[in-house]
Amino acid sequence: MTAAMNGHRPAAGHRVVIIGAGFGGLFAARALRRAPVEVTIVDRANHHLFQPLLYQVATGVLSEGDIAPPIREVLRRQHNARVLLGEVVDVDLAAREVAFDTLGTRSHLPYDSLIVAAGAGQSYFGHDEFAAHAPGMKTIDDALELRGRIFGAFEMAELEPDPGRRDPWLTFVVVGAGPTGVELAGQIAELSRRTLKDNYRSFDSAQARVVLLEAADKVLAPSPEPLRRRAHRDLERLGVDVRLHTMVTGIDAGGLDTLQDNHTAGRIQAHTKIWAAGVQASPLGAILAQQSATTLDRAGRVSVAPDCTLPDHPEVFVVGDLMQLDHLPGVAEVAMQSGVHAARTITRRLTGDASERPFRYHDLGTMATIARFRAVAYIGRLRVTGITAWLMWLFVHLAFLTGFKNRVAASANWLVAFLGRGRRQRTITQQQILAHTHAAQGSQEALAADPRQPITSRR
Amino acid sequence: MTAAMNGHRPAAGHRVVIIGAGFGGLFAARALRRAPVEVTIVDRANHHLFQPLLYQVATGVLSEGDIAPPIREVLRRQHNARVLLGEVVDVDLAAREVAFDTLGTRSHLPYDSLIVAAGAGQSYFGHDEFAAHAPGMKTIDDALELRGRIFGAFEMAELEPDPGRRDPWLTFVVVGAGPTGVELAGQIAELSRRTLKDNYRSFDSAQARVVLLEAADKVLAPSPEPLRRRAHRDLERLGVDVRLHTMVTGIDAGGLDTLQDNHTAGRIQAHTKIWAAGVQASPLGAILAQQSATTLDRAGRVSVAPDCTLPDHPEVFVVGDLMQLDHLPGVAEVAMQSGVHAARTITRRLTGDASERPFRYHDLGTMATIARFRAVAYIGRLRVTGITAWLMWLFVHLAFLTGFKNRVAASANWLVAFLGRGRRQRTITQQQILAHTHAAQGSQEALAADPRQPITSRR
Repeated sequence: MTAAMNGHRPAAGHRVVIIGAGFGGLFAARALRRAPVEVTIVDRANHHLFQPLLYQVATGVLSEGDIAPPIREVLRRQHNARVLLGEVVDVDLAAREVAFDTLGTRSHLPYDSLIVAAGAGQSYFGHDEFAAHAPGMKTIDDALELRGRIFGAFEMAELEPDPGRRDPWLTFVVVGAGPTGVELAGQIAELSRRTLKDNYRSFDSAQARVVLLEAADKVLAPSPEPLRRRAHRDLERLGVDVRLHTMVTGIDAGGLDTLQDNHTAGRIQAHTKIWAAGVQASPLGAILAQQSATTLDRAGRVSVAPDCTLPDHPEVFVVGDLMQLDHLPGVAEVAMQSGVHAARTITRRLTGDASERPFRYHDLGTMATIARFRAVAYIGRLRVTGITAWLMWLFVHLAFLTGFKNRVAASANWLVAFLGRGRRQRTITQQQILAHTHAAQGSQEALAADPRQPITSRR
Repeated sequence: MTAAMNGHRPAAGHRVVIIGAGFGGLFAARALRRAPVEVTIVDRANHHLFQPLLYQVATGVLSEGDIAPPIREVLRRQHNARVLLGEVVDVDLAAREVAFDTLGTRSHLPYDSLIVAAGAGQSYFGHDEFAAHAPGMKTIDDALELRGRIFGAFEMAELEPDPGRRDPWLTFVVVGAGPTGVELAGQIAELSRRTLKDNYRSFDSAQARVVLLEAADKVLAPSPEPLRRRAHRDLERLGVDVRLHTMVTGIDAGGLDTLQDNHTAGRIQAHTKIWAAGVQASPLGAILAQQSATTLDRAGRVSVAPDCTLPDHPEVFVVGDLMQLDHLPGVAEVAMQSGVHAARTITRRLTGDASERPFRYHDLGTMATIARFRAVAYIGRLRVTGITAWLMWLFVHLAFLTGFKNRVAASANWLVAFLGRGRRQRTITQQQILAHTHAAQGSQEALAADPRQPITSRR
């Protein structure tokens, strides 16, 4: 089997190319493990990303390795699968070929079946200039950048003797109260109130302000009402300043401009801003739409037939966050199930069964954790909150990580973070400090003419 | 106590400023915990770095958080100590003041006693142009960069159908056979032979070549002879190509030029090169030498009086890798003991005891681990090798990390790496891929006109 995969012999079987190794692509690849096919999975990263826990990397609980197992390690024993590092830049539906770039060199991959699981990136709703000031929460790079900014802000606060200039370093604004925004705001609040206790000499870290901005009228919008209420209450108990009906109209180095209830303009002075508001599907969606009879929705998602294929290209599947079907939400569970559906359809066709079977999503529920021992979960009609929901959250996420063999060390990190007080992953890199130094020097002329007082003046 | 430290009251006690939170600075700070002083420790990083394990971060065994605890977390309960983030750029011995920069803003710190523990960086022996092609092993940034390059090289090899062009991706050259170079070469060999087994489809990762170049006539030069022999044998058993009497005369993107036995020129084609050869003391040494009656040695280290002070400035201590005293080696143990010596001298002076006590180094031995279950150790006259030495190595390092509360998760990572087959920290960031893409595109014209074959041509 390995010989057939090593690229030196002509293709023996049906070639399945999978674009993206997120939940959709990886579950599709695994569901093809016993199929008589040759699977090639292309991703621009070397790792699968367990995105639901990305906010814990940003806030110092987990290491990047805890949630980002190498794709090829996950598929190590699956001999009909190979993994290639590269960014897919084009799909030629007529020629049945995918083009991808690695270190500036282009390669081409022919396919018999194609599963496009390229996912979605952050959307700034047309304000891409916000990105430099408010990173998103989509990649390991984002999480490490945020980690550096969050812990770096506390470092800067320790250096700042003037309270009026210190406060913006101790103000953290999260834009968007979906699951990522809610969990992130909760974690930053816990970090400041518990983990960082006694770490600073010139201020009390519990003074830090965490503001959660949401344009809609509720947090965790797609969840059932009792859960939303509980999450909202838990956030406020943690001291998070939750502001609904609040739009962000501007973001710069020093803070954010807001508009509340469509008429009250406001300003929050804050050095650390995090964007968890919108998603935009991969640009590959537009490439597919140009060549087929499908359409894109406002978020750039590809409308697919009931079996997740392109209307006029039954050999091309679109799954996960890039797929638009029955207004299904962009959650991991939909991605996994649609990926598996695509894999099963390909397998069935190879046995001569060409019948169309529509994709049916089985909603297994939704959960979010606000802080240690606090979570909300909704499983079918069952509502769970508090420590029970939190233990369920822990169990489900551990079970998932187990699949990727990361259980032992993630457990250890969680043990330290949840039972103890510490967080082990608080590294700021020199590169991050350098980047922010350059940014600060560039904007220094724009800053008030009043330079920071030397430390000697404090004494 | 905290109030006196918060910068809003005049200084109450004797002000000790410590530059650098490596082994020397951190042990000095801790040794002052009961002294009637105000300690300020300034470091350009937010973390102490457990440098002896840096090579394990580079090779995917440990996360950066495992070996880089935040300085302020280590000193959390020491209320007479504060920690400031900044790069010290000047010391004014006459004014007794230290200047440091943070995000482009300068601050000044007056002192009554100063402990300079700024350490040493990589030295390329006048060939700084080597740095871009062969990163050193001194900081977390270095280790993460190397991690990306090592795992990235295997990714590139998987994409390369031409064996002649694949081999340079599978060749790893470590320059310098001191402890870091020896341990790194051993780890890369283990990585390729064990961890990455079955990860690739177009080659066997065990084919990877690891070359260890050393200009001198032995590995682990300062260690006793039986240990050197054992280390050499262990490396060769692991399949490391150890080349002694070999100088590096050039390094570029594609490989290294070497000179063996002073007359045979050679060339090794390798994309991944690591520099573990020379150290150069911090530039603060030169700043001190300009203002006092001390001299610098060839490596830029500051000659100190027997009690670790500057000859004409008894209030200024130089400790650790920046210190030149009795030709002591630049190892963690010397840094710790000299840092503690400086702290005790300051404490004794404050009680009115002005007697000079020279620093006496107690050699507690030396150890290095080549691979899982293989190490060499020398404790006094006792020689230990093999699994016994390895267990000692594990115990000593765990005991050290324990002091920084990182035992649980580091143990878990080690359990996975040593008892199992896996390594959990294999993340390549998009930023790293992007940087190498730009580098590759920049040098593409310089490369052979023969572009890499598209993958389609393999089938």
